Amino acid sequence: MIIDDIAGHPGEWLRGNGPLCDIVISSRIRLARNVLGFPFLTRASDAQKAELAATIRRHIDAEATAGDWAYLEMARVEEIDQQVLVERHLISRQHADARGSRGVSISRDESVSIMVNEEDHLRIQVLRSGLQLDEIWDDINRIDDRLEERLDYAFHPRYGYLTACPTNVGTGIRVSVMLHLPALKLTGEIEKVFRAAKDMRLAVRGLFGEGTEATGDFFQISNQVTLGRTEAEIINDFKHQVIPRIIDFENRARKALVQERANALDDRIWRSYGALRHARTISSEETMLHLSHLRMGIHLGRIKLVDMKTVNDLFLLSQPGHLQRLYGAKLSGEQRSAARADLIRKHFEACSSSA
Amino acid sequence: MIIDDIAGHPGEWLRGNGPLCDIVISSRIRLARNVLGFPFLTRASDAQKAELAATIRRHIDAEATAGDWAYLEMARVEEIDQQVLVERHLISRQHADARGSRGVSISRDESVSIMVNEEDHLRIQVLRSGLQLDEIWDDINRIDDRLEERLDYAFHPRYGYLTACPTNVGTGIRVSVMLHLPALKLTGEIEKVFRAAKDMRLAVRGLFGEGTEATGDFFQISNQVTLGRTEAEIINDFKHQVIPRIIDFENRARKALVQERANALDDRIWRSYGALRHARTISSEETMLHLSHLRMGIHLGRIKLVDMKTVNDLFLLSQPGHLQRLYGAKLSGEQRSAARADLIRKHFEACSSSA
Repeated sequence: MIIDDIAGHPGEWLRGNGPLCDIVISSRIRLARNVLGFPFLTRASDAQKAELAATIRRHIDAEATAGDWAYLEMARVEEIDQQVLVERHLISRQHADARGSRGVSISRDESVSIMVNEEDHLRIQVLRSGLQLDEIWDDINRIDDRLEERLDYAFHPRYGYLTACPTNVGTGIRVSVMLHLPALKLTGEIEKVFRAAKDMRLAVRGLFGEGTEATGDFFQISNQVTLGRTEAEIINDFKHQVIPRIIDFENRARKALVQERANALDDRIWRSYGALRHARTISSEETMLHLSHLRMGIHLGRIKLVDMKTVNDLFLLSQPGHLQRLYGAKLSGEQRSAARADLIRKHFEACSSSA
Repeated sequence: MIIDDIAGHPGEWLRGNGPLCDIVISSRIRLARNVLGFPFLTRASDAQKAELAATIRRHIDAEATAGDWAYLEMARVEEIDQQVLVERHLISRQHADARGSRGVSISRDESVSIMVNEEDHLRIQVLRSGLQLDEIWDDINRIDDRLEERLDYAFHPRYGYLTACPTNVGTGIRVSVMLHLPALKLTGEIEKVFRAAKDMRLAVRGLFGEGTEATGDFFQISNQVTLGRTEAEIINDFKHQVIPRIIDFENRARKALVQERANALDDRIWRSYGALRHARTISSEETMLHLSHLRMGIHLGRIKLVDMKTVNDLFLLSQPGHLQRLYGAKLSGEQRSAARADLIRKHFEACSSSA
């Protein structure tokens, strides 16, 4: 089963080694597509949904190289495994929680996932570590073209691709970049980013996209407008305007911290190390916060007792789904917090003994 | 100068090895005395205060064995050194902050201090680690008798020793026991102690006695009533009633924590270790709290990475006066917090490398 295959190690996008990875966690493009001749899902009967899912799956499977792709029917995926997929950003929470015939096709390296019967008939996503929008666009465009040869997409000559929600009509594209902005958060300047994003009609969200709050140090920036601009224009804006500006803000904030408040910065980083290294019970949120400080600390050369691989692994493995899968059992909140602290401690011990 | 002599290591009472030292930090008795023929200090002129101080000093010096006692004139003691004396409980804050002719005579092992011209003409104090009220009473009674042979105390056949504040009239005695009650604090049962103390007409105060709040995990229990009961009755109450009851409460709470909430207990202890081991800036209050958790953790055998001597030394040395004396300079609040974190880290490193 593919979940066994992927749950133990991070996919390509979480390896943390893509371009500009000190600040850019990952880039993602998704396309919303619907198949001509079927109603939107809010209006589709169970039978229509099942037929639609079967049809789409057949065409995806035909395009996929055997062994390199896997199709999962959501109804057959256990709750903890669904959570694992959400934590890996391979499906949305909505897709996990929904009912009716639906699935997801995932490439072995987890860079591509195609959700079937989410909000639209197809949600094609390509995800990569660091800032790699051009590479992603090449990939997703090719996948989209090949599927379009097999499936008749609902397309209007004037409006473009038709989608279940009007906000996606047109290109059906959403470009998102996940940024790690701990220095802007620490100095309180993160508001600047929010304002700039608003001016440019971009959305700022939390770690898990739509409907999740931008808490912690991770922020997902994505386009709001899909109509009246080409995909290339949207991507170029991100590449040449939006992301470089935010990276510049964050780098200045980091530099200022190092130069003017080095001791307070080190205090933050080292206390996070101390908490993770010694806690006996710890929540997911607190873990994220400390890992975020360590991530910054490692990139700034302020801490060498722990390596980036350990931090990246723990970002993923400390989340509730992964944790329960690792322990092979459903755990209560209290049990999870204790298990999480154990897991982190073991990783840190391994890390410092090899240092 | 005596301050050089004492500032670097803890006095007898802070060695933490007295009877019942897992819960009882220290015991203390003080006697308030005034000299016949001089007005109370609120009514004394500067000349009278000076004459009084000189007279008392002459008699104390005559009784003291040279080299084993030192008399400090407060006006000549620098501000940081005054703070050191307060932190060692050898003088009161009021005595440090007051004006006019006043002093303190201190025995080399710091178990005895005699404040001259504090609220009363004489405040004789004996302080020891753990629960040692009988030993203290023997000491202080002997000192008091010998001074009484030289000085005429203000004494009324019906009311007893006359004192500046009516609450001390009679025996002039205050018996105080400093307790470490982290488990009762953690479980919220500390209120029980407050109620029991109130019923027995005892006062509960913080680490520095009168006027300091009972925050943190350290509580000073002392008698309120000095009139109508003999010294022996007051001391026996403490020895046989008050203190054993509170020790029993605390021991039950510790046992319950170990049996029912071991992970939460260890979390508290180990996070405190992590914070002290890695912080780069830390306040006095936070330091106390973490040291308190470690103290409990060591006594309960939950942590072995740090020893009690290190914890006891740091209780004293991390306080503002000691810290500034150690650094040989007056430091701002921010500088103190950074220096404190440094000092603690060095002690912990020395401790774990020798472990």
